[in-house]
Amino acid sequence: MVSTTSAPDQSSRPPLFRRSTTRLSDGRELIYFDDSEPFLSGGTTRCAEDLRALPAVESSGELRWDARVGEWVALAAHRMARTHQPSDDDNPLAPTRPGHRTEIPADDYDVVVFENRFPSFAGPPADEAEPGGAMVDGEPLWPRRRAAGRCEVLCFSPDPTGALATVGTTRMRTVIEAWADRTRVLGELDGVEQVFCFENRGAEIGVTLSHPHGQIYAYPFLPPDTVAVLAQLRRHRDATGGNLLDDLLAAELRSGRRVVSEGEHWVAYVPAAARWPVEVEIAPRRPVPDLCALTEAERAELAGFYPELLRRLDRYFTDADGAPMPLPYVSAWHQAPARIGRDEFRLRLRLFSVRRSADKIKYLAGSESAMGVWINDTIPEAIADRLRELAA
Amino acid sequence: MVSTTSAPDQSSRPPLFRRSTTRLSDGRELIYFDDSEPFLSGGTTRCAEDLRALPAVESSGELRWDARVGEWVALAAHRMARTHQPSDDDNPLAPTRPGHRTEIPADDYDVVVFENRFPSFAGPPADEAEPGGAMVDGEPLWPRRRAAGRCEVLCFSPDPTGALATVGTTRMRTVIEAWADRTRVLGELDGVEQVFCFENRGAEIGVTLSHPHGQIYAYPFLPPDTVAVLAQLRRHRDATGGNLLDDLLAAELRSGRRVVSEGEHWVAYVPAAARWPVEVEIAPRRPVPDLCALTEAERAELAGFYPELLRRLDRYFTDADGAPMPLPYVSAWHQAPARIGRDEFRLRLRLFSVRRSADKIKYLAGSESAMGVWINDTIPEAIADRLRELAA
Repeated sequence: MVSTTSAPDQSSRPPLFRRSTTRLSDGRELIYFDDSEPFLSGGTTRCAEDLRALPAVESSGELRWDARVGEWVALAAHRMARTHQPSDDDNPLAPTRPGHRTEIPADDYDVVVFENRFPSFAGPPADEAEPGGAMVDGEPLWPRRRAAGRCEVLCFSPDPTGALATVGTTRMRTVIEAWADRTRVLGELDGVEQVFCFENRGAEIGVTLSHPHGQIYAYPFLPPDTVAVLAQLRRHRDATGGNLLDDLLAAELRSGRRVVSEGEHWVAYVPAAARWPVEVEIAPRRPVPDLCALTEAERAELAGFYPELLRRLDRYFTDADGAPMPLPYVSAWHQAPARIGRDEFRLRLRLFSVRRSADKIKYLAGSESAMGVWINDTIPEAIADRLRELAA
Repeated sequence: MVSTTSAPDQSSRPPLFRRSTTRLSDGRELIYFDDSEPFLSGGTTRCAEDLRALPAVESSGELRWDARVGEWVALAAHRMARTHQPSDDDNPLAPTRPGHRTEIPADDYDVVVFENRFPSFAGPPADEAEPGGAMVDGEPLWPRRRAAGRCEVLCFSPDPTGALATVGTTRMRTVIEAWADRTRVLGELDGVEQVFCFENRGAEIGVTLSHPHGQIYAYPFLPPDTVAVLAQLRRHRDATGGNLLDDLLAAELRSGRRVVSEGEHWVAYVPAAARWPVEVEIAPRRPVPDLCALTEAERAELAGFYPELLRRLDRYFTDADGAPMPLPYVSAWHQAPARIGRDEFRLRLRLFSVRRSADKIKYLAGSESAMGVWINDTIPEAIADRLRELAA
């Protein structure tokens, strides 16, 4: 057990929390971020050690180059056996209690991050002499690599019915510290090109564990979305001399038509070309490359600003009896890659939902999945109007 | 009613069918391709006229430029009201019968194509002076255009439980004629950049009408997938002098590891970097830009080759009792754009499914939907092994 007292780099008033690390029985790293008395979920003898006899994590994943479109595809056959909608008694993200050992060997926790037991990306980049060769079937058109990198799970509530919308400002603030910590630490790992903090929420988007949780992926290559944004940043700079992401934010603020909330440091708006039935972006007013670079004041405001928006989203649709329906969503931090483009990229949170009405889901069929052409049944201004109407 | 007798351009033995066109009561075009005696589903007085009093088609769709990634997004708010899982009695794709008028004003049909009543793309490109202006909120970063183009529905069986896998070789041959016809005709429309023939099948991928049908979209811009392939073709040509799509097919044939069926003119294989739990491509051995350019011999073989593969796919998964489960899928013809890249692009059918086991679906969550990084739980060689095992 390693304990450290951490504070963000640029803090004026660092929040009070303790960061401590341990290992699970199969060697995976687990990190507690404790923000409540006695700041010791992992530090006492209460179940502090993982007593399960777990087999070693299988991380036989492979990357193959899809030359047709120029993208890496991850193959993770070992994940087919991952835990899928377990019963409450088998919830692996609950705190450990007598007779029920979970992924978290403590009887309570505030925020905890640990390596995924079924990772799509794990370990250091391969040596040159990779077993199986560096090409599929020896064909130079098909480069292959070990699926290096890291996949982590972030839990922020011991309550299986909890939600980021309602954990409270202190806990949200600790989640922000954990995101920034992981962005920094994973971005420094050998071979990692992009750190991605996100939350998939709701069975409608395929979440396999209903206990609330976020995830952090450290990719060993630049994801296609990042590649596209970097190319657009370059084109715009060549054409205008300006920064595309700064200019897009300025245009949203100038128009104001789709702005749904404004703080001193943060703005939320529905992007002018939103492609999902519900979609909203959160941006810091200041140009910031990633979560690590947020000031203490920006982090403190975000801890209230983001959950307030999440609470609106959970009232966006109502069922036949008028009861609010928790929104299934993907909430995705787009941040600067670990090694390039750090002067140009701008931090954004993009949150979107596949729900298009109380009883309908948007599916990605031929136009989206095969051709990459999104068709949105909802206009962005209507999303913004609904989100404004829901302001507390 | 206009009637013509049509034959494919390069036919050695043209198939016997009659093409005739009419208009629905709201002005939409409908085209019959009759291949069975008496070759006249649309040509007799039997319900040949659409007697419904339909309001004009609303096609208020708009395109907005998503500068963040450099893609057009279609907004089609009018489609929110489209027909969704109607009861059998309200099936709009069945033949018309007394008391039940449908989209097809005939009491039987072989193959019929008509303009979608809820189109995402419709009509000619806008004049310069577009109502609402050519930019969202007057911002140059946000170009907007009318969602011009065309969306068509292709029905190939009057039987609501029919499937392309089982309509028979003659009917399949007629479907190929219809695809080629629409590719040629729509590709010549003002402003159309890409014709896309596809079939979405199964509630699991969001099909809103269970009656079997295909679709044809004529996009007024190059879809992102086409843009990506054209860029890769150019890079590969610059690096090697070769054609990427020719070279990828040659590599699959040289390896043979993932080839699942071979004909004189056609090959089916699982691509080396398949990204879906079930995925297969069909390619002509000869370099062919699009469906119009297929010879009579290629069309004739495809009419048996493709349904045979579809029948394997419908036995790919079995339920708990061992009964085959019809596969939900997207089957997508990737062909040369209408105006550029015609020397380089090569016709391919890509078919993929979101089903990853008898009781599990692959969802596109944060990694795929936000970052564009696909993670496949299944390795391509395993898909190929299963498809070979299912050979008739």
